Amino acid sequence: MQVFESHIAVRFKHVDAAGIMFYPRYFELINDLVEDWFASGVGESFKQLHLVEGRAVPTAHIDVNFHAPSKLDDELTLNLRVVRIGTSSCTLSIHAHAGDEARLSATLVIVHMDMKTGKSLPWPAHTKAAMTPWLNAHQNHNGENA
Amino acid sequence: MQVFESHIAVRFKHVDAAGIMFYPRYFELINDLVEDWFASGVGESFKQLHLVEGRAVPTAHIDVNFHAPSKLDDELTLNLRVVRIGTSSCTLSIHAHAGDEARLSATLVIVHMDMKTGKSLPWPAHTKAAMTPWLNAHQNHNGENA
Amino acid sequence: MQVFESHIAVRFKHVDAAGIMFYPRYFELINDLVEDWFASGVGESFKQLHLVEGRAVPTAHIDVNFHAPSKLDDELTLNLRVVRIGTSSCTLSIHAHAGDEARLSATLVIVHMDMKTGKSLPWPAHTKAAMTPWLNAHQNHNGENA
Amino acid sequence: MQVFESHIAVRFKHVDAAGIMFYPRYFELINDLVEDWFASGVGESFKQLHLVEGRAVPTAHIDVNFHAPSKLDDELTLNLRVVRIGTSSCTLSIHAHAGDEARLSATLVIVHMDMKTGKSLPWPAHTKAAMTPWLNAHQNHNGENA
Repeated sequence: MQVFESHIAVRFKHVDAAGIMFYPRYFELINDLVEDWFASGVGESFKQLHLVEGRAVPTAHIDVNFHAPSKLDDELTLNLRVVRIGTSSCTLSIHAHAGDEARLSATLVIVHMDMKTGKSLPWPAHTKAAMTPWLNAHQNHNGENA
Repeated sequence: MQVFESHIAVRFKHVDAAGIMFYPRYFELINDLVEDWFASGVGESFKQLHLVEGRAVPTAHIDVNFHAPSKLDDELTLNLRVVRIGTSSCTLSIHAHAGDEARLSATLVIVHMDMKTGKSLPWPAHTKAAMTPWLNAHQNHNGENA
Repeated sequence: MQVFESHIAVRFKHVDAAGIMFYPRYFELINDLVEDWFASGVGESFKQLHLVEGRAVPTAHIDVNFHAPSKLDDELTLNLRVVRIGTSSCTLSIHAHAGDEARLSATLVIVHMDMKTGKSLPWPAHTKAAMTPWLNAHQNHNGENA
Repeated sequence: MQVFESHIAVRFKHVDAAGIMFYPRYFELINDLVEDWFASGVGESFKQLHLVEGRAVPTAHIDVNFHAPSKLDDELTLNLRVVRIGTSSCTLSIHAHAGDEARLSATLVIVHMDMKTGKSLPWPAHTKAAMTPWLNAHQNHNGENA
């Protein structure tokens, strides 16, 4: 029941003409979070995975609610939990907040695939084992564990 | 029952180390499509809206299914339909395909707001009227009208 | 003495909190221009070059003067000329303007290299031949041919 | 004779189909560095500058040499020195390296301007004073102080 957490500041490059986070930039931050979780939470770097072993973990589905805009210099906390580990997929729940204000809630499904064949690939047993401590089946609306 | 369509090529800047569209880039393309639809489909440019009139149309919700990866040089067709026009929101359905292969299906909800107060704002009557021809309540899984 | 030209509109995704083109975005546009020139001006697609033949054309040097800011909805014309064709390098001159106002002037040096060894590679004779019509040694400050 | 330093890892979002840093991404990192230097080195946040005081510091010129490609997971050190403080401009020298391998050397000129009039604005005396400790007129090719 661990939660993987990261912190980022909203920078000039993230904001639009309205002075708030341009929402496509959030997906880069979500990708960074998943990349960091893989490297330090699961023990598999994207470099090793993609460039050495020819495997990939593309996002098959993502569903995001944006609760409130993020402004330049806001300090965001992002956290990630595992909701479900499938044979060759993994469902993640991600929340971002600044102070006690929720900014976004996302659910995404990543799929483990072979880059050469383009076919899905069952997770190795050691990967599934490394993902399991992050499994948090039950959580409330704010991303807190119930 | 009109459909707003645009065409883009997958460029070098869009692809990742796996040689396929890095998925956060799709959200920039979706934003371009909504921006173009506002300008030429609804008759309100983002420049006029944001920089002159202090209004904004942030995305409150987005839900995307990625059906197949897009590769460098693929020619994508994106189309947009209006699913629902609310008092101060609008639900859009977006599909992308390359040839006859579906690439993504997205549903997004944009909200009309006042940039100064940060509060939602009812759509002006002329905006609602301009959105109405694009309303396509019924469509099948492939984004084709039923 | 041909000039390779492209046209792009300044979009919402390009502008910053000051409502003007965020300058790192210009480098994506410059890369698009070089990519398009390779594909339709030189006859070698980046896909074929990078993903099939394992060759790359990284930028070794770039020098840019930004003459005036670009604003949302500005229509930019970008043009490219070849200044020098070396054994395994090529020097390009790029200009962007909106109407009769200059926006940027750039000089960049790209190098032809082998992706596996990371070493520079002489241009094939047919590539040099295809680049030659774009060679414009003399031009004035505004990117016009003298 | 201080040097402003930051550290970043090359992430999946930074790299291209060749598995190396897509060079336009470097300019986002350079902008982050300048933003951080302004906030913690000079004592003026970009938020305060742009969104509260209506001032901006656009880049008028940038000149970059890319010495070697950066790969996924490389740890980059970026450092910034001031080369010259003008009436309303400031020349910066930026170097990036990974371990003892130089990656890029850049010189950029930023200009202090009034966002409403679009005219250059002399630096306030306190800003010039805050920039002065970072002035390093003499340095060698590797960005080390001579």
